[in-house]
Amino acid sequence: MSAIKLVLVFLLWGTISRADDCNLSQAEIEEIQSYQDVVNQIIEATTNGQFKGETFEELAVFVDKFGARLSGTQALEDSIDYLLERMNSTFDIENVHGEDVQVPHWERISEWAEMVEPISAKIPLLALGGSVSTPEDGIEAEVVVVSSAEDIHNNYHDAVDGKIVVINYDYHSYGVSVSHRYDAPVAAANHGAVAVLIRSVTDFSMDSPHTGQTTYEDGVTKIPAAAITVEHANMLQRRQERGENVTIRINIQTQTLADATSRNTVGEIVGSEKPNKVVIVSGHLDSWDVGVGALDDGGGAFISWYALAVLKSLGLRARRTVRSVLWTAEENGMAGVKAYDELHKDDLGDFIFVMESDDGTFTPLGLRFIANTKGTCILTEILKLLEPINATQAVRSTSGVGSDITIWKDVLPTGSLYNQNDNYFWYHHTKADTMEALDPDALDRATALWASVAYIVADLNEDFPRALTDSGFYASANVFYVVFLSLFGVWFY
Amino acid sequence: MSAIKLVLVFLLWGTISRADDCNLSQAEIEEIQSYQDVVNQIIEATTNGQFKGETFEELAVFVDKFGARLSGTQALEDSIDYLLERMNSTFDIENVHGEDVQVPHWERISEWAEMVEPISAKIPLLALGGSVSTPEDGIEAEVVVVSSAEDIHNNYHDAVDGKIVVINYDYHSYGVSVSHRYDAPVAAANHGAVAVLIRSVTDFSMDSPHTGQTTYEDGVTKIPAAAITVEHANMLQRRQERGENVTIRINIQTQTLADATSRNTVGEIVGSEKPNKVVIVSGHLDSWDVGVGALDDGGGAFISWYALAVLKSLGLRARRTVRSVLWTAEENGMAGVKAYDELHKDDLGDFIFVMESDDGTFTPLGLRFIANTKGTCILTEILKLLEPINATQAVRSTSGVGSDITIWKDVLPTGSLYNQNDNYFWYHHTKADTMEALDPDALDRATALWASVAYIVADLNEDFPRALTDSGFYASANVFYVVFLSLFGVWFY
Repeated sequence: MSAIKLVLVFLLWGTISRADDCNLSQAEIEEIQSYQDVVNQIIEATTNGQFKGETFEELAVFVDKFGARLSGTQALEDSIDYLLERMNSTFDIENVHGEDVQVPHWERISEWAEMVEPISAKIPLLALGGSVSTPEDGIEAEVVVVSSAEDIHNNYHDAVDGKIVVINYDYHSYGVSVSHRYDAPVAAANHGAVAVLIRSVTDFSMDSPHTGQTTYEDGVTKIPAAAITVEHANMLQRRQERGENVTIRINIQTQTLADATSRNTVGEIVGSEKPNKVVIVSGHLDSWDVGVGALDDGGGAFISWYALAVLKSLGLRARRTVRSVLWTAEENGMAGVKAYDELHKDDLGDFIFVMESDDGTFTPLGLRFIANTKGTCILTEILKLLEPINATQAVRSTSGVGSDITIWKDVLPTGSLYNQNDNYFWYHHTKADTMEALDPDALDRATALWASVAYIVADLNEDFPRALTDSGFYASANVFYVVFLSLFGVWFY
Repeated sequence: MSAIKLVLVFLLWGTISRADDCNLSQAEIEEIQSYQDVVNQIIEATTNGQFKGETFEELAVFVDKFGARLSGTQALEDSIDYLLERMNSTFDIENVHGEDVQVPHWERISEWAEMVEPISAKIPLLALGGSVSTPEDGIEAEVVVVSSAEDIHNNYHDAVDGKIVVINYDYHSYGVSVSHRYDAPVAAANHGAVAVLIRSVTDFSMDSPHTGQTTYEDGVTKIPAAAITVEHANMLQRRQERGENVTIRINIQTQTLADATSRNTVGEIVGSEKPNKVVIVSGHLDSWDVGVGALDDGGGAFISWYALAVLKSLGLRARRTVRSVLWTAEENGMAGVKAYDELHKDDLGDFIFVMESDDGTFTPLGLRFIANTKGTCILTEILKLLEPINATQAVRSTSGVGSDITIWKDVLPTGSLYNQNDNYFWYHHTKADTMEALDPDALDRATALWASVAYIVADLNEDFPRALTDSGFYASANVFYVVFLSLFGVWFY
């Protein structure tokens, strides 16, 4: 590489770096910086003062009282009643109410599995959400282990008729691997399988099956579907590779009842100047029926309403409304947010920024969000104020963030809690989803971040940029850099 | 601090450092260094050549075939028969035989627990080894949560009569915390408790109860004893702290049958010059009745016999005998090693060095051992040869190493596999003790280390130093340094 080319690379590097720089006015920057005292007050109250440990404690009382909260169950509705009362009476949050939603009501009744050949051994399993039952006496059949739906189609299409298919894939990310959970029953049934067992969707297992929603297709036989542990999937695979014939008996009993009425749980701190403009913080209150839904999504739901409790107690009323929405029925199809979207379709224009935490409430690092460049600059500047809790990272995303709120990912700015959630999927949808998956200090910090960001975005002079793509200066600049980069590349090689 | 004192500190530091230095002759060092080629050959064969992955594969076949191997069960005896045949016929290990031992035969039949007040919830549990049964209909009683046996005695002696005691202690190390498992039933029964549930002995839980042996005392009522998960112990504690009355129903059915005949499993590569002198590598073949005993202690047992398979295949016959002993019935009282000690009491003088791996077979780092200074120097020099697999750490211990072999900790030199076992107690005595707790590469390296150390110690010109304490030069030197250090300290301050 010639010296002049090297110099040009450095110049180019500098130019590209600057392309992402922010162009906020000094006044805008100073306006955001003026919230440092407010943020410090929130952080002090949550991590050291009267609210220290309280998000965890509130959640512990809640999950101890109600346990798991599957959509359609009385436990979920009782838990909503309790929380409406608590938000309203104890914490004086405003406009506390439920908004009715029709939700699915599927229930696990019983399930067991055992290997009967070549040796007898119990096989832990969890029926997948929506799974049909086996016949009352169960199913006994030989096992065929495959690596994916495509593997059935390509290599085992004649081999699975009348068999129990085990799908033992190589785990990549949750986002990639979860497709096996959805695709398995249709793919297996299409080739005559009588049941399907998937390897649980996780990168770490302590003998833990993980449930989660699955799907069927009209016109394809609905076969029972369950998750077995990573350990057992690998064990069955080893046996197949050794040429052993393995027979399994499974018995899964479930029922799908009539849709039930549930509620999205809503509370606000009404804005002082523009009450119709709304910043939303959210999580979902329903959970799967194993464990107690402390991690998924008790943590996300509780930082969302508790952020309002903190703001209210500190007398922090923003110019715009800060609203907490605790979605119902996220786990089995997101009926809650869909109903909310429909009910509020005329208000969507007033939703300034919508946040959801449904990826864990471990130690917070900052925010992931979808926003345009100016929005990115504003959030970056706001997050600098979270320096005292080391949660300053602004991660601009192009794919959806959150879970429920991905419904609006192309419509309005959305954000989610960026946190140290490397172990999130260890616990997700398992019996181990309990308070031990959470940490009181991490929850305090998450509440602080949630309250701070929501308050500031709701209080700024100007509305948060609505557009998700850039226009004007930023767009031109971006086009310029792309063209320049391309030309430079052509010349360089 | 004056300059002269500072200089003296450095001089003293240098002197102390040298106090641990080795005084091996150049000839002794060169003798040990001459084994580098042998060690390289072993490492090549196990980590790259014909044995790569085979320790794991052998163990996987074994645990898939026989599952858990509790003392007294047919599964354990079948597994011993299989292994005797495999060691003898497939790998041509010498003098392969079993040595009879009478072992306890306690069995878990069934167990369940549920909270009935204030809400209904299942409580996973595992009866502790040796636990008596509840009445056939179970026990229903209020719960009292305490932090230890002493806590009952000091603070709850009037409060546990007729109650189910839950012992929810602060976990420290396994060595410290396991005492709760042993002490719980007697301490609780002494104050009238009807059953005792301990928090599982672990620093990490994924809804996993951990079993393990407990003890009773003559003259104290034997009450049922089980382990519950960390999650449930904490949940019960939270409820007590809130003043909730908690009632639990438990039903534990176990049986203690007549002692059974089991075997220690023995194989050798007979020494070429001093066949009566023996280096032992060992692990235990029995396991608890949950999981498949892959980690505890399948790994330790399998590196122990497979080290011999490797040596035999490579034609590496040492001057002394290398013997593999796979203990039986370690888990519930170490009947295997006790019988071995009794049977071989006249041979103990010929046991040169005894090694056991029962703390995990994760990535090996070196050896922990009890030896005198010269023995320490020899092992340190040998372990330098393991540099290609980065397992060179020589850790001199004063407390016992291994598990079974602690019976000889004051009698002869003993060593154990020093390995990256931070997560060992995550899996220990749980259903998650499966092949997924192990790693093929780590097992290969452990086999290499085991084979290398055993071979060299068995082959050196001189017998490994028998004495566990120093005499002559080393002892005088140590006395000198202690006196010097004390005088220096007095002068310095």
